[in-house]
Amino acid sequence: MLVEFDGSPFSGWQKQANAPSVQQHIQEALAVIEGRHVQVVAAGRTDAGVHAEAMIAHADVSAGRWQCSDRAYVHGTNSHLPESIRIVAVRAVAPDFHARFDCRERAYTYRIWNRTTASALHAWRHWWMPRHLDVDRMREAAAHVKGRHDFSALRAAGCQASGAVRTIRELNIWRDGCEVCISVRADAFLYHMVRNLVGNLVEAGIGKMTPAAFGELIDSGDRKLGAATAPAHGLYFADAVYDDFAARRMLEAEAAKGSVV
Amino acid sequence: MLVEFDGSPFSGWQKQANAPSVQQHIQEALAVIEGRHVQVVAAGRTDAGVHAEAMIAHADVSAGRWQCSDRAYVHGTNSHLPESIRIVAVRAVAPDFHARFDCRERAYTYRIWNRTTASALHAWRHWWMPRHLDVDRMREAAAHVKGRHDFSALRAAGCQASGAVRTIRELNIWRDGCEVCISVRADAFLYHMVRNLVGNLVEAGIGKMTPAAFGELIDSGDRKLGAATAPAHGLYFADAVYDDFAARRMLEAEAAKGSVV
Repeated sequence: MLVEFDGSPFSGWQKQANAPSVQQHIQEALAVIEGRHVQVVAAGRTDAGVHAEAMIAHADVSAGRWQCSDRAYVHGTNSHLPESIRIVAVRAVAPDFHARFDCRERAYTYRIWNRTTASALHAWRHWWMPRHLDVDRMREAAAHVKGRHDFSALRAAGCQASGAVRTIRELNIWRDGCEVCISVRADAFLYHMVRNLVGNLVEAGIGKMTPAAFGELIDSGDRKLGAATAPAHGLYFADAVYDDFAARRMLEAEAAKGSVV
Repeated sequence: MLVEFDGSPFSGWQKQANAPSVQQHIQEALAVIEGRHVQVVAAGRTDAGVHAEAMIAHADVSAGRWQCSDRAYVHGTNSHLPESIRIVAVRAVAPDFHARFDCRERAYTYRIWNRTTASALHAWRHWWMPRHLDVDRMREAAAHVKGRHDFSALRAAGCQASGAVRTIRELNIWRDGCEVCISVRADAFLYHMVRNLVGNLVEAGIGKMTPAAFGELIDSGDRKLGAATAPAHGLYFADAVYDDFAARRMLEAEAAKGSVV
């Protein structure tokens, strides 16, 4: 299933003991449809406050409930979800498909509101940065992390991954008025890797760090030398790519479909 | 002052007896700064739930409080406002300037989310329209209202304006993925005029009304023949134009400034 969510009200993707999570809401909605507990697994486990434009998750559901149509299944499930979580589309996959282990590539977008005054309309969806960001300097710094690197310097203390080598396949930074966006695509990400990357690129953008120093930071592998982690509410899970399909392409197909009820 | 606000939590611009309004919040914030009641007047009085990207309002404030700097005055006032209202910039005007009576032109933008499923991220900022909108048909219908017309057919029952003749100087409709936007610029608008216009253009877009029938509706001057009023939460006040300056240009200047704290 292709899932969109506003992360503001949730403790993150993963089910927690005492806080509402996206996973839990979807599992409870599916339990109503299916009449039994259904486990839902996502391509990535987002932190509290992180949003998703295009997340992929899988669940084993009964063919009988689904037989009506994809659309009816989507609408039925959405009717049991809060408005801040929407299943956008569904597709049948192989019985052994796994949203996390089969994912070959993931992408995130980070949105910054770069203006003296914060935005009344976008405050919860952007990191407000009142100091001017020099996008060219940010790009110069970003050049140091494109490709295959050991990203220990951008890894949070709690990261449970066994290795820290990842491959960044795309990293784009652009400005549109007050908005500065950073989009990054990699085979996989370490815990807090995108938010630590953004924190450092912003320090380069405001002149607190030279682009060369960012390269040295990556080479050092020392997290303690880097900038503070960027806040969660500017971060969006933006794509999950599999052998046969990708979240972004499903989203675009849904938009192009035009939709007749 | 240039004001941005998210209209969701408010009863509209205008101060009401028992509901929080944007005007009231700004008046209370200025009262803290100025140490006395200050009346604030806007270019247009928006309905409950309507947003503003760029509203202009005026107030008589003391030169003494302001003498520090524009920026300090803006930040001081914002510190007493809820996050869903921001003063973006201020400028000194002639003592007899009036935000409403001196306004020569106003613009609104209306945002529609056109996809089978609603958006988790944009639900409160768009009108969700699951049926496919044919933008070409909407443009064909829109051609009937460009220029000077009697807009009685798009006027709400409670409208207090003495005449119904207004001049629509620009009316653009475009699609960007799932989003369909309508922007309209006129000397002035009647009560609910934009929301009634959008309601009818959407009926043309989904095929419930022919573009020609929309032209006939305008000619008839009969509100009862038209479509339902589009909901408030998709509407944004987008510009107010005066002899010496305009809200949109102030907003763009603020974005371009780059901002160094």
